[in-house]
Amino acid sequence: MITEGHTLAISATCSMCGKRVSLGRIYRCDVCEGPLDIDYDYAKIGHASFEGTSGTRADGMWVYRDLLPASPGYMVTLGEGQTPLLKAERLGRSVGLRSLWVKDETRQPTGSFKDRPISVAVSQAREMGTDIVVTASTGNAAASMAAYAAKAAIRAVVLVPADTPVTKLLQIASPGARIVRVDGSFSDCSELAQAAASEFGWCNVTSTFENPYSVEGDKTVAYEIAAALGWRGPSWIIVPVGSGPLLVGIGKGFAEMQRAGLVDHLPKLVAAQAAGCAPIARAFVRNAETVEPWESPHTVAMGIRDPLVGYSVDGTYTLRAVRRSGGQAVAVADEVLLHSARLLTETEGLYVEPSVGVAVAAVSALADGGTIDADDTVVIVSTGHGLKQSPMSVDEMQGLPKIRPGLESLDALRLVL
Amino acid sequence: MITEGHTLAISATCSMCGKRVSLGRIYRCDVCEGPLDIDYDYAKIGHASFEGTSGTRADGMWVYRDLLPASPGYMVTLGEGQTPLLKAERLGRSVGLRSLWVKDETRQPTGSFKDRPISVAVSQAREMGTDIVVTASTGNAAASMAAYAAKAAIRAVVLVPADTPVTKLLQIASPGARIVRVDGSFSDCSELAQAAASEFGWCNVTSTFENPYSVEGDKTVAYEIAAALGWRGPSWIIVPVGSGPLLVGIGKGFAEMQRAGLVDHLPKLVAAQAAGCAPIARAFVRNAETVEPWESPHTVAMGIRDPLVGYSVDGTYTLRAVRRSGGQAVAVADEVLLHSARLLTETEGLYVEPSVGVAVAAVSALADGGTIDADDTVVIVSTGHGLKQSPMSVDEMQGLPKIRPGLESLDALRLVL
Repeated sequence: MITEGHTLAISATCSMCGKRVSLGRIYRCDVCEGPLDIDYDYAKIGHASFEGTSGTRADGMWVYRDLLPASPGYMVTLGEGQTPLLKAERLGRSVGLRSLWVKDETRQPTGSFKDRPISVAVSQAREMGTDIVVTASTGNAAASMAAYAAKAAIRAVVLVPADTPVTKLLQIASPGARIVRVDGSFSDCSELAQAAASEFGWCNVTSTFENPYSVEGDKTVAYEIAAALGWRGPSWIIVPVGSGPLLVGIGKGFAEMQRAGLVDHLPKLVAAQAAGCAPIARAFVRNAETVEPWESPHTVAMGIRDPLVGYSVDGTYTLRAVRRSGGQAVAVADEVLLHSARLLTETEGLYVEPSVGVAVAAVSALADGGTIDADDTVVIVSTGHGLKQSPMSVDEMQGLPKIRPGLESLDALRLVL
Repeated sequence: MITEGHTLAISATCSMCGKRVSLGRIYRCDVCEGPLDIDYDYAKIGHASFEGTSGTRADGMWVYRDLLPASPGYMVTLGEGQTPLLKAERLGRSVGLRSLWVKDETRQPTGSFKDRPISVAVSQAREMGTDIVVTASTGNAAASMAAYAAKAAIRAVVLVPADTPVTKLLQIASPGARIVRVDGSFSDCSELAQAAASEFGWCNVTSTFENPYSVEGDKTVAYEIAAALGWRGPSWIIVPVGSGPLLVGIGKGFAEMQRAGLVDHLPKLVAAQAAGCAPIARAFVRNAETVEPWESPHTVAMGIRDPLVGYSVDGTYTLRAVRRSGGQAVAVADEVLLHSARLLTETEGLYVEPSVGVAVAAVSALADGGTIDADDTVVIVSTGHGLKQSPMSVDEMQGLPKIRPGLESLDALRLVL
């Protein structure tokens, strides 16, 4: 049933201690600091809700409005979602898989999947009458929040690590968000956003697990993948992971569809991390119960460079989702992830940021090792555009040939082209 | 009728002298060098063909396969097209329009509308058995061709002006295209691509009017706009214009729909150019019959910096399309177009390259002057993403505040945020 009037979200439950809390401006569990998970009145949610048949193309992922925790009247949308699921035939041949697909989240308004969680979080913030939103971000979520806050005419403050690339800063600043560069890691920014929310009353839309509404946007990726594959879930979904809300969201989306009888199995979820910041993969390999923070994060994959200092419970939450699905967590060295990002671009024409390379490399390794079978249906989630951070270095552009106009000049180059 | 087997394109006609030519590897009219226009077997094309009901989301604009000049079996797609038409309420209020919309072509795979014409041109080149494709480009079409050639496993050579920004070069190089920087203007690159096609046998997919198949991709923008507005065409469509294939394509798409009885009127088309390179706007204002080349192009709007040297007939073709529609051609100074691009970002959250600013400024000027009425339905075509070229300068990022982690540091900044 499509509700025009109000959301079907009814409460939130702590994913760690099970405490139930009322909706409103909530962040973490006040008992154990665990991430909160939004509950819905599932009795009112039918197949049509997952099929996203309401609304128009410009409503984007809000065609799934029954399954989102903000009332439609407060929706702040830039037409996010409804991204294509592309068959990756050349990459598939290269890694030995016959049914490899790319869920192309680079096609979002600001060029990363973050537009889904941020659209939900800003909409919910608007419903709560928020004047100022704040976010900690490695760049992608901040660019997204800046755009959605502009659309909603809400003031936005963004806290980013001081070494965030200028390309991302320009994208954040252009819609009018106020940027504060923090001389520290993403975790320092995250802690500061929490403090600002608590002390200044700003609404914290940090789209990891800090803002429980944002994860609900991530889960719409699952609905779209299932629909594109004719309601047969894939065997594997490979996700680049910092703290993991996208992976957890996708798992939740499939669980909801299974509960509704729309899909008959759940995909195995793979958390792909960069070796230089891999708290979840480390815990997985060690068979640990909980995830520990990462001491000195160092990787070119800035979009997933999250050491989890101060909220390592978020990593534990993601680790549990991986294990429950029968999936894997893997760590990929910078050299390999850069090569893998380039491989995706060269074979499929999809220009992606280095973070996506971890997922491509993970698929390749798991297929090589026989964990993924050549006939399995596998989906890589391509989380961010190469225009945000190129996997190729500017130095490589120094050697490009330069000629005077005229065919002779071009002819002289033909052998090396 | 949806044809799986072969295209319904049957011939091409010179837009200037009317000569009819057979399809194949064709470029310009061999009599008068006029742009060629593709003809279809319209008797076989019904309403369903324009409604794009065949295919899936991942087929992108190829749901319009009956109206495209490559056989579906040769389709090279990255899921381009199907971009949202977004209501621009805040910008509308700012310029005094009640029904202002943005057709968001920044949502294409490579971040610009060029993915439509290039998808068609590369598909057709593939159908012709092409080994090497070449394009002249100010950057956007080249990035697109590099991506589609990678997907199709065809070698790609790209000719760009030597001052093309490094962000665009990285995007072109990553999929493996060979870049040649030409010490000259876009027109020099274009002439060189023509010579290479003629002398080396490379297929020239230059997506202005050089490759007649490419314009057919541009026209799908019209089908999508009409569908999103419930088959009521808008009163005005404002397009950033270099030589103008997108504007001409949109005009052709609406004419096709009118002929099929799907829409009852044609929109007025506005060609928006940068004042530093405005051959079409100059001819329009002077009431000239033909467009003359622009002597010294100079504008920050690189995506539309085309002086038309050697093919000014293309400008004449666009000028005629503007006049036939009852539209306008306007020129916008760099300072104004940059401000206007920023205004779109600040009000609607849509981050766009400077070229888009000319369309925003044109709407504002025409609304101010009373040419566009406050109640007219107006569509701005947003042609390229701000991640490709920011309307904000890197210098503006120098002054961003940088703090140590800790709430006191942030609190000290609160008044200036």
